[in-house]
Amino acid sequence: MAVYTEVSDEDLKAFLAAYDLGEVTAFKGIAEGVENSNYLLQTTGGSFILTLYEKRVAPEDLPYFLGLMEHLAARGINCPTPVPAGDGKALRELCGRPAALISFLEGLWPKRVQPYHCRELGAALARLHLAGADFPGRRANNLSLPGWRPLLDRCRARAHEVQAGLAEDLERELSALEADWPAGLPEGVIHADLFPDNVFFLGETLTGLIDFYFACNDFFAYDLAVCLNAWCFEPDTAFNVTKARFMLQAYRRVRPFSEAELEALPLLARGSALRFLLTRLYDWLNHPEGALVAPKDPLEYWRKLRFHQEVRGPGAYGLD
Amino acid sequence: MAVYTEVSDEDLKAFLAAYDLGEVTAFKGIAEGVENSNYLLQTTGGSFILTLYEKRVAPEDLPYFLGLMEHLAARGINCPTPVPAGDGKALRELCGRPAALISFLEGLWPKRVQPYHCRELGAALARLHLAGADFPGRRANNLSLPGWRPLLDRCRARAHEVQAGLAEDLERELSALEADWPAGLPEGVIHADLFPDNVFFLGETLTGLIDFYFACNDFFAYDLAVCLNAWCFEPDTAFNVTKARFMLQAYRRVRPFSEAELEALPLLARGSALRFLLTRLYDWLNHPEGALVAPKDPLEYWRKLRFHQEVRGPGAYGLD
Repeated sequence: MAVYTEVSDEDLKAFLAAYDLGEVTAFKGIAEGVENSNYLLQTTGGSFILTLYEKRVAPEDLPYFLGLMEHLAARGINCPTPVPAGDGKALRELCGRPAALISFLEGLWPKRVQPYHCRELGAALARLHLAGADFPGRRANNLSLPGWRPLLDRCRARAHEVQAGLAEDLERELSALEADWPAGLPEGVIHADLFPDNVFFLGETLTGLIDFYFACNDFFAYDLAVCLNAWCFEPDTAFNVTKARFMLQAYRRVRPFSEAELEALPLLARGSALRFLLTRLYDWLNHPEGALVAPKDPLEYWRKLRFHQEVRGPGAYGLD
Repeated sequence: MAVYTEVSDEDLKAFLAAYDLGEVTAFKGIAEGVENSNYLLQTTGGSFILTLYEKRVAPEDLPYFLGLMEHLAARGINCPTPVPAGDGKALRELCGRPAALISFLEGLWPKRVQPYHCRELGAALARLHLAGADFPGRRANNLSLPGWRPLLDRCRARAHEVQAGLAEDLERELSALEADWPAGLPEGVIHADLFPDNVFFLGETLTGLIDFYFACNDFFAYDLAVCLNAWCFEPDTAFNVTKARFMLQAYRRVRPFSEAELEALPLLARGSALRFLLTRLYDWLNHPEGALVAPKDPLEYWRKLRFHQEVRGPGAYGLD
């Protein structure tokens, strides 16, 4: 939760002069999203989210992200869409940062995940994968296998501060994943960060997916593995096989997956757990004192990784 | 900026069951307000602010604060008003904390204060003082003179970490204020914390005052002194006498102040500067590592205090 950049009255006015949105009636920083600064902007013309892209987002990637949101929305996926200014451009600059005005999406993210959330999510994820098929942009997943070793290298010397022997454990796991990482699985555009706070619901109905700023081209099944980790563990890190089954069954009703994808799931789930473990570990060891965002516990993902290491096949995820 | 308490789906649902607001369409943490957790709640019935009162607000003071907002709103002051549930009660509980649903106020707070903001503020402050005259509640200002020595005592040992000799300087100033603090000035309900982020504007028109959680009974002129410090210094701590003159002249057109109030202003301004210096100093020395809120610079108020120490009379504030 954070607003990193404060937008002055003059800067906001100058930014909005390029649009025709009526009079501003409210402008409030939103305590959500750890990567960017987000403001709720209300005008006589409607409600919007104004996003300023902070340093974690590479400016050269923004056309991919914004283009993807437009592409998906045009294919019926409920997601925020960039609002172009009068000159037709949606990607602009504000307070020295890239910035965009985005449509406001109704809904609430689930603070406590229920099985029906997972069912809705599975179907939405499959629809997302299908809708992205003809998106022309390409972006490598820089937080997949090739990105993990450099991350581990930057954490190695101090990983023991978090847990004794952690560097050695992660080295062993990473070597195993490097040896066995699958190739040739079906791939396309994936969200890559579809945690509950990026999925909105009204009642039991999923109303939208947000935050496409990790989206990239990678295995579809890797996206499922991210969701298994993010949605199917209880707060005490017990795995909830019912939630996993709901998610995977709903997914495959929309996009049936291949036997190879199914077989690869446990390994992909280990990889996804390692990915979040490493980025959290790095943030944990390097967050500045007085940081606006409390770092997340890396060991949550250590426990998830341990679960998947014990899995002998996709049956553990509730599939027959 | 912070949301300290995360409200679960079930808790929100149970809380709102006492109201008749229609369906919830959005619920977002707001990155404003350093004392409490604030959420923007949108329903098919309208927009609201849901506030959870965190530890800095004494629960026994809440009836005073909420009652005051109701009182002021009934007398035409634009301020948020508590929304009573079906049982007539506005003060409730949520996630183990006192909580209240508050009406949503349109407007933006000025990030860069202009003289016209100060003029509008002066008039609004005077109207606030008049409108509070028949409010029956009473609450002592626990951050006025009697509260400063205990605060200084808790900072004394480490004040030098912020500036060499600071404890001695503050001791001397506090002793002077204790000797000369005025008595018998006109008093009533004051806001006591009317910083720019608590005052909303649409264009050049003031649309509302918020955050009454420091309100108390004290000298009206002390409230003016708080505003002189909060509104009339430039970011480099240069005093802007034009802003002060706009504020004070607009105030006295609505509520003329006495000669005694005018004469007391420099001393009250020193007191108000010391008050914010001490609370900031305490927070600076005691904020936990990884705190969600970056502590504010106490020395900003040291420079303001130094300015008022040199003032020889109210003429320095632009009054003739």
